[in-house]
Amino acid sequence: MNSPFTPTNYPTLPAIPGVKMAVANCGIRYKDRSDLLVCEFTQDTAVAGVFTTSLTASAPVLACRESLKGGYARALVVNSGNANAFTGSVGIESVKRVADMAAKTLGCPAGHVFTASTGVIGERLPDEKIIGTLAALDFSADYMAAARAIMTTDTYPKLATRTATIGDIKVTLNGIAKGSGMIAPDMATMLAFVFTDANIPASELQAMLAETNASTFNCVTVDGDTSTSDTLLLFATGKAGNKTGDTSDFKRALRELLHELALHVVKDGEGAQKLVKIIVSGAESHAAAKKIAMSIANSPLVKTALAASDANWGRIVMAVGKAGQKADRDKLSITIGGVSVAKNGAADPSYKESQIESHMQGREIDITVDVGIASGTATVYTCDLTHSYIDINGSYRT
Amino acid sequence: MNSPFTPTNYPTLPAIPGVKMAVANCGIRYKDRSDLLVCEFTQDTAVAGVFTTSLTASAPVLACRESLKGGYARALVVNSGNANAFTGSVGIESVKRVADMAAKTLGCPAGHVFTASTGVIGERLPDEKIIGTLAALDFSADYMAAARAIMTTDTYPKLATRTATIGDIKVTLNGIAKGSGMIAPDMATMLAFVFTDANIPASELQAMLAETNASTFNCVTVDGDTSTSDTLLLFATGKAGNKTGDTSDFKRALRELLHELALHVVKDGEGAQKLVKIIVSGAESHAAAKKIAMSIANSPLVKTALAASDANWGRIVMAVGKAGQKADRDKLSITIGGVSVAKNGAADPSYKESQIESHMQGREIDITVDVGIASGTATVYTCDLTHSYIDINGSYRT
Repeated sequence: MNSPFTPTNYPTLPAIPGVKMAVANCGIRYKDRSDLLVCEFTQDTAVAGVFTTSLTASAPVLACRESLKGGYARALVVNSGNANAFTGSVGIESVKRVADMAAKTLGCPAGHVFTASTGVIGERLPDEKIIGTLAALDFSADYMAAARAIMTTDTYPKLATRTATIGDIKVTLNGIAKGSGMIAPDMATMLAFVFTDANIPASELQAMLAETNASTFNCVTVDGDTSTSDTLLLFATGKAGNKTGDTSDFKRALRELLHELALHVVKDGEGAQKLVKIIVSGAESHAAAKKIAMSIANSPLVKTALAASDANWGRIVMAVGKAGQKADRDKLSITIGGVSVAKNGAADPSYKESQIESHMQGREIDITVDVGIASGTATVYTCDLTHSYIDINGSYRT
Repeated sequence: MNSPFTPTNYPTLPAIPGVKMAVANCGIRYKDRSDLLVCEFTQDTAVAGVFTTSLTASAPVLACRESLKGGYARALVVNSGNANAFTGSVGIESVKRVADMAAKTLGCPAGHVFTASTGVIGERLPDEKIIGTLAALDFSADYMAAARAIMTTDTYPKLATRTATIGDIKVTLNGIAKGSGMIAPDMATMLAFVFTDANIPASELQAMLAETNASTFNCVTVDGDTSTSDTLLLFATGKAGNKTGDTSDFKRALRELLHELALHVVKDGEGAQKLVKIIVSGAESHAAAKKIAMSIANSPLVKTALAASDANWGRIVMAVGKAGQKADRDKLSITIGGVSVAKNGAADPSYKESQIESHMQGREIDITVDVGIASGTATVYTCDLTHSYIDINGSYRT
């Protein structure tokens, strides 16, 4: 079943000088579609990355973290269909073989090859299928083909593009992502790759990526489960030729791009029928606000009510209460769709459910909660919890 | 739909000297069933209690916490149908009026009256209906009637009984509980009340209740959501006439009783079709083990797989990874139904899914996870996440 948020028009992403892409079908799991994306970068391409916080991170994530220390990338190899996670030393060796082969083909150190895998957990990655494909790739793929190659059970490809200026030079940022589709037999993984021709050193890229990721991808949730494989990589070829300088406009564009991709991940969340924006204010700190917002966003009781278009604000109160962060029960106020439903710690006497009925039945739900303590704020996005989530995730792996 | 775990036989609970019970239908929300339980205790009945950790706790919870300081109880008044939560100062006044009336009827201080409410959030408790009933109660109800009066959408009443000896005196413990049924329009609340004729001072009762609660009710989860109203109270009339002394056998019986009631709460969890026992070992501490076990027990991806009888152990790995506690990925081992499915950080080569197929299709699933760090252990119980959970919780409140 396709997401109700499937775009009617996809953006056309321009070429980024210094980036070439190829896709292929290696037959890892899928038939009749590409399951391999290989990107080749010009020499001296800077790289930054953020990864899952899972303590059971996949083999490619471990390898990326290591390679990131060098700050340079010549290639990115991504496969869908097998996550190469929980595969022990065999998995580490698979990553090494793929990186070695890509490095040999491109004539670069293996540490300049980045890999990502998404799909089944606990099964050996058939790396020979990838290796056998690497030598004979056609580097003429566009971003749409790239976005499709990394999909698992995503129902639509996710792409975004922005431009920015550094000094008086225009630079371009392109991004692709895959989200919370489940690949039989396993769980959702978020992968996102951003490509730019900007000339920005790796250390500065890394700082910007960490900061913008915190307010974009790290502020969305589908079910609160954290993949072993979540990966966000940013590659900067430097081909735009800008001098290093004020990157504030680049950062603005990067944040917008990541935000757009992150929202696509929520919208295409497993079984999602509604996009839910939750703004928490009045918390002790921004971090406290985010914990409260995530407590609401991940509450099964809140999410099932939303699925039924039910303005069950008592459950929002419950989720605030269980978040473990300071909240003044007697100052708590809640709005839904801009209408005050509760204030000063009790139902708003003027509120009538009919006021927000049409808002609740819409595709996009807005919830604000003020907890009356201080000025910490946070905004997070989630989706509803529907029967389709159970159908998708209860499917047998066979 | 009734729980598949509905008992075919209920235990018969003996009378506890010093405890009298009455039930009534005040018409708070339900028709044609009792919605009020009033217990009268003999003078000098000691009381202990533990409550929700929610920061948006209900008015009765706040009042109980206050009354508990005195250590004595003469009455317990429990209503179903309205939680008196998020009702502001109006809710506090309702509790006070009910306690005042009960105190007047019994001739005791209002601080010796304990109250609990479960049901709708954010609506004023019609305390006049309770007060109007208090004067004319028939104190001849049995524990089955009491257990039924506190139900919301529980599908069956929950009762348990145990005996123990203190010195050479036999004492009896009776318990009733209500669990994770949802009351239109709101969320699950866990209420449990234990009655004993043992003679144990309030301070010692409190220590035993806190300790045994930690390994029983605090080790079960249905959906990870925490009610504003969770209440566990223990009343000891002292009528058995035991001298104060070694209470280790009493504590054993109390733990067994709470464990039995807690399992009923999980088994009658919203939509539950399976009871799932998760044992985590090898963690850095018992607390760390419990966090990992709860991460597994509350993972929607794990729970939907269980609902489909799918031995998707990759999701268990994921849930271990996201728990934020130390785990050695390369020593991680998992068994399901006693069969090793993963060891030393990878799939067990000898494991075949057919080995556990019949176990997965059963009513009770056993999962063990060793994380290979130290010797911390924990056992928690949960249920699966089924379509019924969404149906029950997505119902309109009208």
